[in-house]
Amino acid sequence: MTPGRPVPPPLARPVLPADTGVPDSGAGLLAAAYGAASADSGLVPLTVARRAPKADDVEIAIEFCGLCHSDVHATRGEWGARNYPLVPGHEIVGTVSRVGSAVEDFVPGDRVGVGCMVDSCRECDSCLDGLEQYCEVGMTGTYGGKDSRNGDAMTQGGYSSSVVVDRRYVLRVPANLDPAAVAPLLCAGITTFSPLRHFDVAEGDVVGVVGLGGLGHMAVKLAKAMGAVVKVFTTSETKVAAALELGADEVILSRDEDAMAAADRSIDLIIDTVAAPHDLNPYFRTLRVDGALFQLGLPAEAMPPVNPRSLMRRLAYAGSMIGGIAETQEMLDFCAEHNVVADIEMVSADQLNEAYHRMVAGDVKYRFVLDTSTLQAPAEEADA
Amino acid sequence: MTPGRPVPPPLARPVLPADTGVPDSGAGLLAAAYGAASADSGLVPLTVARRAPKADDVEIAIEFCGLCHSDVHATRGEWGARNYPLVPGHEIVGTVSRVGSAVEDFVPGDRVGVGCMVDSCRECDSCLDGLEQYCEVGMTGTYGGKDSRNGDAMTQGGYSSSVVVDRRYVLRVPANLDPAAVAPLLCAGITTFSPLRHFDVAEGDVVGVVGLGGLGHMAVKLAKAMGAVVKVFTTSETKVAAALELGADEVILSRDEDAMAAADRSIDLIIDTVAAPHDLNPYFRTLRVDGALFQLGLPAEAMPPVNPRSLMRRLAYAGSMIGGIAETQEMLDFCAEHNVVADIEMVSADQLNEAYHRMVAGDVKYRFVLDTSTLQAPAEEADA
Repeated sequence: MTPGRPVPPPLARPVLPADTGVPDSGAGLLAAAYGAASADSGLVPLTVARRAPKADDVEIAIEFCGLCHSDVHATRGEWGARNYPLVPGHEIVGTVSRVGSAVEDFVPGDRVGVGCMVDSCRECDSCLDGLEQYCEVGMTGTYGGKDSRNGDAMTQGGYSSSVVVDRRYVLRVPANLDPAAVAPLLCAGITTFSPLRHFDVAEGDVVGVVGLGGLGHMAVKLAKAMGAVVKVFTTSETKVAAALELGADEVILSRDEDAMAAADRSIDLIIDTVAAPHDLNPYFRTLRVDGALFQLGLPAEAMPPVNPRSLMRRLAYAGSMIGGIAETQEMLDFCAEHNVVADIEMVSADQLNEAYHRMVAGDVKYRFVLDTSTLQAPAEEADA
Repeated sequence: MTPGRPVPPPLARPVLPADTGVPDSGAGLLAAAYGAASADSGLVPLTVARRAPKADDVEIAIEFCGLCHSDVHATRGEWGARNYPLVPGHEIVGTVSRVGSAVEDFVPGDRVGVGCMVDSCRECDSCLDGLEQYCEVGMTGTYGGKDSRNGDAMTQGGYSSSVVVDRRYVLRVPANLDPAAVAPLLCAGITTFSPLRHFDVAEGDVVGVVGLGGLGHMAVKLAKAMGAVVKVFTTSETKVAAALELGADEVILSRDEDAMAAADRSIDLIIDTVAAPHDLNPYFRTLRVDGALFQLGLPAEAMPPVNPRSLMRRLAYAGSMIGGIAETQEMLDFCAEHNVVADIEMVSADQLNEAYHRMVAGDVKYRFVLDTSTLQAPAEEADA
């Protein structure tokens, strides 16, 4: 069942409860999945009962799901206590298998995506502004969220063979892009696209990217596609060639004080993707007047303080979280136009635990994507 | 000579060197002044030789000069080593006494102001953008600056009977405002106006003001004049009445967790004027999506770190420094239109040292202004 990797035996493989609600017709699916049975179980095979589509629902046969570093934190309970079992995955690409009676914009066979959220209140200023990710009531995460429109069931994510999502939170995947390599766009892509777009990056702007992991490599590609000059900051000489290969115009070794000084006041916007504590003050020196540094990595430990003097040239130390639904669609369309996708390494279900080890070790270029065809079908399991 | 206050005797009263350059005609003035003879001298009477006006210069008979907290730090060498003697003061209001041959926009008798800078490179992008305060070469401070166009003389500030300043850095003081109460607008006013304007504060926006000193009280007045709803944060119940009197719509005691929680997501922009280290994370919670906190106070010690999670709703932790020359004029004209000036307490030269003690103790509502007619004339001193 799990060749090659020791994984806890699936003795207590539960069928996770289905979301409730009034289905249009038909029955819900039992979805094959991989997830955490507990904070220390690692990833094990699980079965998820998906609800039958309601009027506004889209049922998706998942083909690919990206592995995000936050999946690791969530399954291990490192970002706060979680309910288990928990199926992670919020970089979902698949094809529509069924739709509810009120769904007009999707039909079976459409290739679609689902990102980090599957619902929000739809009524607050943020939701009405297309900023559902900042919903005042709280967006519903694609996994581990409390699905209030579906009987408060806990949402289960995309390391799974299927998922049912309200049409308002389903994205259209452009036909010209490799669907597996699109999956990471739904989190790593939109997370970096949104601040780049919000800052209105355009031809000739200079964008700095700190760190060259899943998010960083997307920031480089997207900023280049927007016409920016891109400077990558890294602590590691071994990443110089890779950064240039991705399209960076310049690589600055951030521990080289001369190189940092040479970059003084040369950058309009910095996208910082490093999730370990690090001193930001040297980076602010490299920003032009009115520049901003968006910190997208979220270290578990406290960051060294930003000196307010570092910000005096009307600089901003800013945050951002994924993007709204309309903006996510805009990002996908932008990627289609500029032929941008993630660099991925495909993994099968039985390689997920190893992939997590490698992610923690920073050993991935640049995003793992699960091929969900390698998930064991629940029917077989039940028969076994 | 210094009734009422013990002050070091002016035994070694030097005549500070005049700025050099080719004067149009006539001789420079000897200006009566008060300043620091050394880091521990306190403020003592001094004489400053002012250059005769060159073609582009405006000679100003100073009437009033505001006392800024940074004057205290500078004269005491608390923000880095300084050259002495040092005459502080960068909130200068007076009347034009002479102009150079190329000056067409000012004539003797005009009421004018000088703020925190008297020169900049005039060639870099920042200068060309009207952001002289962020000059890439470095602006020339009104005191303690190296005046590169005038033989590298050290600039001496406005606790003085006169000053000579290039016309490009001279502001026009609106006739309908009390000139003494205008003086603090040249630093405290523009420092708060600039981020309010940069953020495009308008009718109905909600502005938070942290701290109610010289800057804070201006932020309240200016934000109100822009049509904002103003919420003042203070640690001190004793300031509630004063804040309301200045025009605040609400006062929030920042140590009251319930009051802070009630302010969640209610504010568009926070102007933080507190110059002591304090935790900013609770303030970010009170900002709406896309909000910003401008920290204008500059604590000598490190601030508690801002948690990047506090910024995730696309919030910005930002800095700002005074404003450009054109913007400073815009601020003065705005104040004229809305009848905004500082609340001041006038002091005479012999009260300067006491005023410094009171500023450090926070005992001023809200800005001291030196009446320069109380400076001892240098001629008398020379005769004594």
